[in-house]
Parts: sequence; C-alpha cells; structure tokens
Amino acid sequence: MPNHHTTDVIIIGAGPCGLFAVFEAGMLKLHCHLVDYLPTPGGQCAEIYPKKPIYDIPAHPSIMAGDLIANLVTQIAPFKPQYSLGERAESLEHLEDGTFRLTTLGGIVIEAPTVLIAGGLGCFEPRKPVLDNLAAFENAGVDYIIKDPEKYRNKNVVVAGGGDSALDWTIVLADIAASVALVHRSQTFRAAPDSVEKAHALAESGKITLLTDSQVTGLHGNGHLEKVTIAFTDNSTIEQTAEYFIPLFGLSPKLGPIATWGLGMERHGVKVDPLTYMTSVAGIYAVGDIAEYPNKLKLILSGFHEAAVALHSEYQRLHQGKKHILKYSTITGITGFES
Amino acid sequence: MPNHHTTDVIIIGAGPCGLFAVFEAGMLKLHCHLVDYLPTPGGQCAEIYPKKPIYDIPAHPSIMAGDLIANLVTQIAPFKPQYSLGERAESLEHLEDGTFRLTTLGGIVIEAPTVLIAGGLGCFEPRKPVLDNLAAFENAGVDYIIKDPEKYRNKNVVVAGGGDSALDWTIVLADIAASVALVHRSQTFRAAPDSVEKAHALAESGKITLLTDSQVTGLHGNGHLEKVTIAFTDNSTIEQTAEYFIPLFGLSPKLGPIATWGLGMERHGVKVDPLTYMTSVAGIYAVGDIAEYPNKLKLILSGFHEAAVALHSEYQRLHQGKKHILKYSTITGITGFES
Repeated sequence: MPNHHTTDVIIIGAGPCGLFAVFEAGMLKLHCHLVDYLPTPGGQCAEIYPKKPIYDIPAHPSIMAGDLIANLVTQIAPFKPQYSLGERAESLEHLEDGTFRLTTLGGIVIEAPTVLIAGGLGCFEPRKPVLDNLAAFENAGVDYIIKDPEKYRNKNVVVAGGGDSALDWTIVLADIAASVALVHRSQTFRAAPDSVEKAHALAESGKITLLTDSQVTGLHGNGHLEKVTIAFTDNSTIEQTAEYFIPLFGLSPKLGPIATWGLGMERHGVKVDPLTYMTSVAGIYAVGDIAEYPNKLKLILSGFHEAAVALHSEYQRLHQGKKHILKYSTITGITGFES
Repeated sequence: MPNHHTTDVIIIGAGPCGLFAVFEAGMLKLHCHLVDYLPTPGGQCAEIYPKKPIYDIPAHPSIMAGDLIANLVTQIAPFKPQYSLGERAESLEHLEDGTFRLTTLGGIVIEAPTVLIAGGLGCFEPRKPVLDNLAAFENAGVDYIIKDPEKYRNKNVVVAGGGDSALDWTIVLADIAASVALVHRSQTFRAAPDSVEKAHALAESGKITLLTDSQVTGLHGNGHLEKVTIAFTDNSTIEQTAEYFIPLFGLSPKLGPIATWGLGMERHGVKVDPLTYMTSVAGIYAVGDIAEYPNKLKLILSGFHEAAVALHSEYQRLHQGKKHILKYSTITGITGFES
C-alpha cells in the first residue's frame, strides 16, 4: 500500500522545531516521517514571513526565515526524513501493541511507536468564503492551497483574494491554466506593488481577467465544479466557466484535529511534562509553540531544546534502563542513514 | 575605582551559553558583564577546539567552533556587554540589599542584582609543574596563560610543554622576547607537524633554544623570578636566565571557587530548578554544562534555551506581578543599547 508507512517517529508539523527534531532523532538512530498541512516545509517561517529577518536564532545575528528553514532542511538531509506535505494530520489511534497510527485527511496512514507534535500554532487553516454549498465542492473544484500548479494546466480557474498569495498565484497560473480570472472585492490590493503591476499588465494583454469590486456568490456543477457566479458591487452578476475556484483569503491558525486526540490540554496548546515534554499519553510528545508548561517561552530556540529533550526522553522510555551515552557531533561527525 | 563595576547581570563564563545570555538579557533591557578565566570569549570552543566543526547547532549544518563564537559575539554586540577576561571569578557575596558582589582573583569587583553562572565544565585550570616554591612565583614570573604576548617583550622567557600551545607560543614569542627557551621532557611533540617544523627551524637559526629530554626543576629570584634550573634526563643541569617561566601543560576543567559559594550542588555541577534554572539562591542562575537537573542534556543548544528561560524568570522575579510581554525580534528588530 503506497499510502501506508511505518517509521520510528511521526513528527506532526514541519516547522523549524519539527525539522530539527529529525536531527536529534537521527543522532539516536531513529527515522522520522514529517506530516504538515502546508505544501512545503517551514511552517509559519516559510508560509507567512519567508523574507523577514529573524534576529534571535543563536549564532545567526540575522537570518531570513526562509533561509533558516533551508539550513534546517540541509542539516537533517543525512537522516533522510520522509515528508507527507499538504496533508492534515486527522486522527491518531493508540494501537493495542502500544504504537500509534496517524491518518491524514488525504488518507495517508503512518504507524510508529513515537509521535512528536511540533504543530506550532496549529494548522494554518484557510479563511473560507461564505457560500452555501462550499463543502460540496471541497476536493471537487474548490482548493484553498495550491500544492502543485500543474494540477490547473489547461483548466479554467477563478482565483479570489487581494493579497500577495492571490496575486502571485494568478501570475503563475496565467501561463499554465486555460483561463484565469482574479476576483477581488475592492479595487486596491494589499500586495507587493510589482505583483499588482504585473497582474494589471497581464489583464491588459488579455492573459488574465481582472474582476474588481466583485466576489464569487455561487458555485455550480454536477459532482465537480463547472462554473461560478460572480456578483459586482453594482448588483450585476456574471457566470464564469471554472473547473477550479481557489479562494486565497489567508490562513488563520487553528489547533484543528489535535484537540480531539484525548491529550491533556492547557491554554491554547497541549500540556506537557516540563522535564520530558511528554503529553498526557506516554509516547506522544509536544514541542515548540504548541507545547504548554510553566514558564514556557514561545521561542524557536526553546523548541529546538524541547525536541532534543523529548527524543532523548523517549529513547530512555523505549530502552528502559539502557543508558544512552550522549554522542557529540563534534567528535564523530554525522553519519546519517543509508536509506 | 576603575576596578569596581555595577551592572544588571553578572555572567560568569563567556562560552557560547554565557555569550547568548547577553542577547536574551538585552531583549529584556538588562545590561551584562561577562567574566571568564580564559583570555578570549568562547570557553572550550575557542580554547580547545576552535577549528573543529560542530554539526548540532540548529540551522548550522556545520560550523567551526571558533566561527560559532564569532557569530555570537557579533550577535550580542548591539547590547554592549562588558568583558573581564583572563579573570577568575573568586568570591561571591550576598549583600544586605539582596544584590551580589563578585570579586575576581585579579581584584575586579562587580555588583549586580542577578548572577548567571554559565561556567561550562568549570575553570580550565592549568596543569602545574611540581616545584617546591612554585606558588611564591605565581604572578611574579610564573604564568600559566598568555593573555598578551607584549608582556614578554625584551624579556628572557622559558616555555615548558610539548603540545600545540607550547609550540605556538614559542614561535610567537621568538619575535618578541629577548630570548626564548622551550623545555620539553621528551624529543617528540604532540603538536601540528608544521609547528614542530617551524620550532626546529627557529632553533637551528638561533632564534630560540630547544631543550628536549629536560624539565625545569628549580625557580630562583628575589621577589620576582630571575632564573630557572633545567635538568636533563642524563642528570646534567643548567641554569637559564628567565624573568618568565611559562609552563603550558594543558588545561583541565575544575569547578573551582564556584563550589565554595554555598550553592546546592549535584553531581559535578550546580543544582537548578528545571523550570527556572535558578540555583538554591534566589537571583543566582546556572545554565549550560554546569547546570544539573533531571534529564539534563549537555548540548550547547540546551544552554541557549536555559539562558533564555533563566533571564525571563529573573525578570519576573525582579518585577513581581508585572507581566513581561515577550517581544519577537522578527517584528521589532534589535535596537541594542546606546552605551
């Protein structure tokens, strides 16, 4: 079964803490499988502020969030983590043999003795338009995240939104889709000026349709989306052929399904033992912004430490009584995994 | 009094954790004064393995220990830390007003409400030769660490040892001192081959005297060192004019005076509360390798986290009830201190 995997550690969240956890696991000879709702590694850093400098990563006087992620991906590459990206961790079962089975919204199943939740502020869930039959077309023409623009090759696409994401994807899709219409409620965009300029130029040359002062008010199709209704502020409406409607109204953090897994919760996160970062369920750990304990600091550097301690604690739990000797990378270097 | 200082946080140990603590203190508007026995910042990283790559600093796939320190020094520069280097933290008094007074072996006095011990494995104390009247000439001609080679300009110097440190300093001093003799017990050196080669070349050209199969067996002088006795394995001896005798037999870690400050101790370090990293004395914290608590990992990245938590905890203690809002450097950048 191509969608069924086993590993040593399931890591939920591929932000900086989840990524670095792969390194600490690797030093303990544990393989990892990362699951993240976003289509690329990096969590907030990659999705929300890749070009913002961060100043408080130790020994990086200043580093762009995107570069932080790139460095971490390079650092863990020798340990050959598996990635399931664009997949929301949906359900977590505790199996009879004490191991765990994670199932994603897309049906990927991963089993492991250990789960590390590095879920940040939770899934960054899309802000959705209010449309009666929206749910009926989710996964049938309505997408909130573009995982692979090739999906839209030679299709008719309606994008909605007025931010960078809507503008940038419209520009990319102009060369791929059969047609692209960008629908936006006002005439002003909250996006990089040169993206706005580019979109206007594409509209003038007829490569895209720019529909301002408008919004999508109806979805139509038989099983799969076929067309949308677009209403303008002057109350006129048009119908637009669209196999895909992609509302890009931004992402808002929501803890999501993790809150339903029966773990002890505190404030907006998962309660952990401050000495091990283990949750109320043995074998499940939480680190980074999602982990709550006394004096918690929501700093990336703290998540790195928490990941290291969690994995060493788990190693102790799995190898009762067998004392792990901490190995320093300085002496032995990194050997990584063969596969 | 030029040797009397006040600050917000006295940091004992200028290794990576002590250095990064300046950043976290700075974000809380606290000034720091670093004290280290070694003559340069960096602790072990700078002194013992500056050219070794480290692989487990998050977001640095590989970094030389010396570069790690250089980056940290750059990162904390905006917060203008004061440094007292080459100074051993000797005594720590708890003053009546609740603040602390640190006095170094060299007589520097620093007062502050907060002390952060980032002492690593302790002072790297010099391995000393066994000589009856050695103590009488310490600070009067016998030096174990070279802080500034200019001290030896136009002086007669005897260096002892067979490692990198002895070889490298002999080579440096050849151009500075009036005369340099390198005394070594055997004929083989445990040092970089090209340093050994250089020393032999200097000896052949008469710029230094190389005395192998020998050791210093006597110190002579009236108040200050004037000459030393050197004995050879064939039982012959010579007397050598020497205002300075510098045995460089390596450094071995010793907790040193910190063990006498009345702090609760555990194993080889200082016991701390794992939620605040505070020692048994309120206002004194310990972080990094010297700090002992359950599940402690002696990793540099853990020391970074401990420093952040310790300083935020201290901020809470000093401002009872006043909730500090964690500021993210990403949003505001680093403003640093004017002075």
